[in-house]
Amino acid sequence: MAKVSVSPFDLSVDIEPGSTVLDALNILGVPIEVICGGKGTCGKCKIIIENQENVSPLSEMERKLLSDKELCEFFRLACLVIVEGDVSVFVPEFSLQRELRILTKGDTVDVVLDPPVKKVNMLLPKPVLGDHVSYEELIVSGLGFDDGRIDYMAIKDISETIKSSNFDVDVVYVNKDVVRVTPHHNPGRIFGLAMDIGSTTVVVYLMDLQTGKMVDAESMLNPQVKYGEDVISRITYAIQYGIKDVHDIIIKGINTMITTLCQRNNLDPMEIPELTVVGNTAMHHIFMNIQPKSISLSPFTPTIKRSLDVKARDLGICINPSANIHVLPVIAGFVGADTIGVLMATDMFHNEHMSLAIDVGTNGELVLGNKDKMVSCSCAAGPALEGGEIKFGMRASPGAIEDIKINKYTLEAEYKTIKNKKPVGICGSGIIDAVAETLKIGMVNSTGRFVDLGSNRIRKDPATGMLEYVLEWAENAGIDEDIVITAGDVREVQLAKGAILAGAQILVDKLGMTFNDLDKIYLAGAFGNYIDIENAVRMGLLPDIPLERIKSVGNAAGEGAKLSLLSNRKRVEENKLSKMVHYIELASHEDFQTIFVDCLNFPEFKCPT
Amino acid sequence: MAKVSVSPFDLSVDIEPGSTVLDALNILGVPIEVICGGKGTCGKCKIIIENQENVSPLSEMERKLLSDKELCEFFRLACLVIVEGDVSVFVPEFSLQRELRILTKGDTVDVVLDPPVKKVNMLLPKPVLGDHVSYEELIVSGLGFDDGRIDYMAIKDISETIKSSNFDVDVVYVNKDVVRVTPHHNPGRIFGLAMDIGSTTVVVYLMDLQTGKMVDAESMLNPQVKYGEDVISRITYAIQYGIKDVHDIIIKGINTMITTLCQRNNLDPMEIPELTVVGNTAMHHIFMNIQPKSISLSPFTPTIKRSLDVKARDLGICINPSANIHVLPVIAGFVGADTIGVLMATDMFHNEHMSLAIDVGTNGELVLGNKDKMVSCSCAAGPALEGGEIKFGMRASPGAIEDIKINKYTLEAEYKTIKNKKPVGICGSGIIDAVAETLKIGMVNSTGRFVDLGSNRIRKDPATGMLEYVLEWAENAGIDEDIVITAGDVREVQLAKGAILAGAQILVDKLGMTFNDLDKIYLAGAFGNYIDIENAVRMGLLPDIPLERIKSVGNAAGEGAKLSLLSNRKRVEENKLSKMVHYIELASHEDFQTIFVDCLNFPEFKCPT
Repeated sequence: MAKVSVSPFDLSVDIEPGSTVLDALNILGVPIEVICGGKGTCGKCKIIIENQENVSPLSEMERKLLSDKELCEFFRLACLVIVEGDVSVFVPEFSLQRELRILTKGDTVDVVLDPPVKKVNMLLPKPVLGDHVSYEELIVSGLGFDDGRIDYMAIKDISETIKSSNFDVDVVYVNKDVVRVTPHHNPGRIFGLAMDIGSTTVVVYLMDLQTGKMVDAESMLNPQVKYGEDVISRITYAIQYGIKDVHDIIIKGINTMITTLCQRNNLDPMEIPELTVVGNTAMHHIFMNIQPKSISLSPFTPTIKRSLDVKARDLGICINPSANIHVLPVIAGFVGADTIGVLMATDMFHNEHMSLAIDVGTNGELVLGNKDKMVSCSCAAGPALEGGEIKFGMRASPGAIEDIKINKYTLEAEYKTIKNKKPVGICGSGIIDAVAETLKIGMVNSTGRFVDLGSNRIRKDPATGMLEYVLEWAENAGIDEDIVITAGDVREVQLAKGAILAGAQILVDKLGMTFNDLDKIYLAGAFGNYIDIENAVRMGLLPDIPLERIKSVGNAAGEGAKLSLLSNRKRVEENKLSKMVHYIELASHEDFQTIFVDCLNFPEFKCPT
Repeated sequence: MAKVSVSPFDLSVDIEPGSTVLDALNILGVPIEVICGGKGTCGKCKIIIENQENVSPLSEMERKLLSDKELCEFFRLACLVIVEGDVSVFVPEFSLQRELRILTKGDTVDVVLDPPVKKVNMLLPKPVLGDHVSYEELIVSGLGFDDGRIDYMAIKDISETIKSSNFDVDVVYVNKDVVRVTPHHNPGRIFGLAMDIGSTTVVVYLMDLQTGKMVDAESMLNPQVKYGEDVISRITYAIQYGIKDVHDIIIKGINTMITTLCQRNNLDPMEIPELTVVGNTAMHHIFMNIQPKSISLSPFTPTIKRSLDVKARDLGICINPSANIHVLPVIAGFVGADTIGVLMATDMFHNEHMSLAIDVGTNGELVLGNKDKMVSCSCAAGPALEGGEIKFGMRASPGAIEDIKINKYTLEAEYKTIKNKKPVGICGSGIIDAVAETLKIGMVNSTGRFVDLGSNRIRKDPATGMLEYVLEWAENAGIDEDIVITAGDVREVQLAKGAILAGAQILVDKLGMTFNDLDKIYLAGAFGNYIDIENAVRMGLLPDIPLERIKSVGNAAGEGAKLSLLSNRKRVEENKLSKMVHYIELASHEDFQTIFVDCLNFPEFKCPT
């Protein structure tokens, strides 16, 4: 066997003489650019061989595809160099695949596919009588690490695995920790999981670590809703009854999703060596079985901020017990690992220009900044923008009104419902549309008061004496009541949008800028996905900047978890980000109340020009 | 609070101004020499204060107790220096306690009490609204480690512990891994466990980590005897039925012992932050749940050699789940962590002179060497020297004959039995005495044959036709048979002593020396404890060197586990030792058979002069 050592990656592999350098790089998972599929025609896979005597001589094809300067510098093409003995290879950065498209919705983030999880094929030397060696040393020294180790749970049967495979094994490791040793199998494959634990929805992504592509995904309603719809009520439950119930139920739910994903893709859960996780600080603590009480009480100190790596067995996650669970760091009690994920997915901390990321759920998390400075805050938007605390509010499920236009003459509403079912309520995006439309036609004024336009659709609620608008009559609805928007509903929306806009205002003030200086606003989360951006600006939920600068980036938090799974460099950035982002506590900000009240009013309606 | 930083230890602690430097050193567990109990009269606790302005001025007592030279060099006495602000203290090595007596039986090993487990009291700063900090950071940065962490399982409730104790906590850590945070309690105490897993006996020692003293111990018959008396039969069981049964039964047994020890000493098992473990390679692998098959088959490669640190929860050991289980390294398939323990307890690898350590059980492990070189081998002594394969052989339990003299005229035996019960069999030390006595009076000649001296006590076994010696008649015994020593028994002893002596011969040959060059022979294990050394030399089981050079060191393997628990320096030595000791495989040694045959004969009896 010939040893191929690859710099600058600190990797090596033993390979059959006669193989190409490209074969070795593929085994090691080095993402070298190859367009022609290794036929020697694209000339992309340029490398430098440091000891020419152990490889095949320069071929005609290489002479043709490499420049004179490159030939002088001893460049070769990895697919055409035949390995004949031990050889050291240098892979220049320009030969690596750079344009891996990670995001489906957000801006493309350039990322080199270089997952912390690696899988290598090793042909181990056979020990003979009197050798001073252990099976663990054969593997660890073969990986070229001084301080590497095999995780305790993965050691158990390696002697039998090594012997039964005739010393030809596949070794999977995360950082320098070997998590699995199996008989060599060709072609190899290697998968990982990324997960976003939202207060409402939990999503797990199955990722192919050889291509960086998502293979499948599975989601569920967060089963903790049983203990409360919002984060605070779940924390309250954990304070009262201990953390066990809320922790156990999320772990059980995650395991069900993973089992489903594995079965559907014909995967043994033992094949999964890593899971990366994002979630807000409360979801993060509860997932990690850490009592979240302290983040619900001033000074809202989280128990832990740094990223965590724990064994799957410690959390009872049903993948390989030696697998690494990598949990991204949090920023503060109410700005969590999900926000770190959003920042990674938008890459805004690498930009010259200023961007603002807004992730709205029950809480709104806002981050403003560029490559030099980042400030963040959390605002208690309340659940109105997700349909909570709204008389006919509901989750975005079948029958929810989600898209509304109101005829300014008849005051009749044209709307769509999810799955085209008869309307049974109004979800978050519908609420925003409804409020924006009532503003547009003057049914609600800038202080949030209903104006009686003289229609049977605008009527007084006998219970409260307040005006309300009948969006749909009971006879056309899927329920036995008229579906209405109440004065109270408008008030809730006002409070929510006031909180978010005030947070944004305080952040731009902090950095001495105005909303006009914003190059981009990124809207993250399901909320950003479904709302009508124009209506959101019209009602003053978002700063009034040109619409083309506002971009929905979908589940950016989950994309951040994927990036952390796929790239060592991204993973290093996480903890830097957690320290770099300055958190502003609005509750203690002296101007918050004033700014909040200023932000409560709706903008005066501007006629379209 | 004032911060006291202590070099060269890289430790620091926040302490109330007005406390003494000695208070700070005591909190940190720095083992400074104090004879007077801190009254300022012994003058032992000499230290250097690096910033004199933050401490009380030089006292009259210090002027008296310190020399002029010491005063010029800014020496002070730790017990008399009052801390008034942040201060850096240097503790010179000569002020540390050095003569901690660790061994009860072997040579005293000088060891500085410096356990990897530390317990410190910390008064944490209280975070305020807007602080960018987590509770974990408060603790870890307070310990002065950049890369320290709190073990995942110990994090769960720290926020509540910290708040309920008003930020005054005790923190227990092993290396840089925090395993427990509790409200501060005074006086503090801290215990650890050391364990020796023998094939026959398992012993757990409860150690006080503040004094280095053993508090209590508990032992049991290794419950794996259910699956076979010797190591090989247990490995065979693990090959046939899997490792689960043999692993589970030892863990269960250990947990029972630990529970007993804790109850007897009024300790909560959660208080135990560390357990150190020695055992032969098979016991080591099975304890660690590692399939031991490979060590029973050529080339006898162990799965792992290096020392291991795993969490108690991973092995199911019922102490603090975050506690560290430290397993000492092994040398080879048949020279295990118990031998590393023996070497540490005898300290022979620090000596100029050559020593030979012999640990005899079913296998004999031998190590020869000094500070420059060490060689080892394992010889298959068989169980004869423990009473196995001997017609009336038995374990050293009540009724076992253990000490024998034979009257050369009457051939009657004078003997002692364990617990003075009627004799029911013969244990290992009895066998050796019996064989030595028969040699002395000429009943057995140097080739191992019985000589018929004409007595009804020497008779022919009707089954085999071979001679045998009646040690005790059935009427005086606790069983219904005559207790005899058979020709076969003598043969077994011959094989065992031949194997051990041949191993020793090959080791001294390897280092180009003779037995006469040996400064010391250390006999480890229960065997070494009970045998009559003179008889062992007489029958040629031990090399014929002056008796005063041969020393029983008791359960030196267990003492090694204690040393590893008590001293960072000793723990560092373990892995060096595992690499330093060169293992010689007798099975592949070309001269082994010849030397073995030469060693089978008993020495000619020398008349006492």
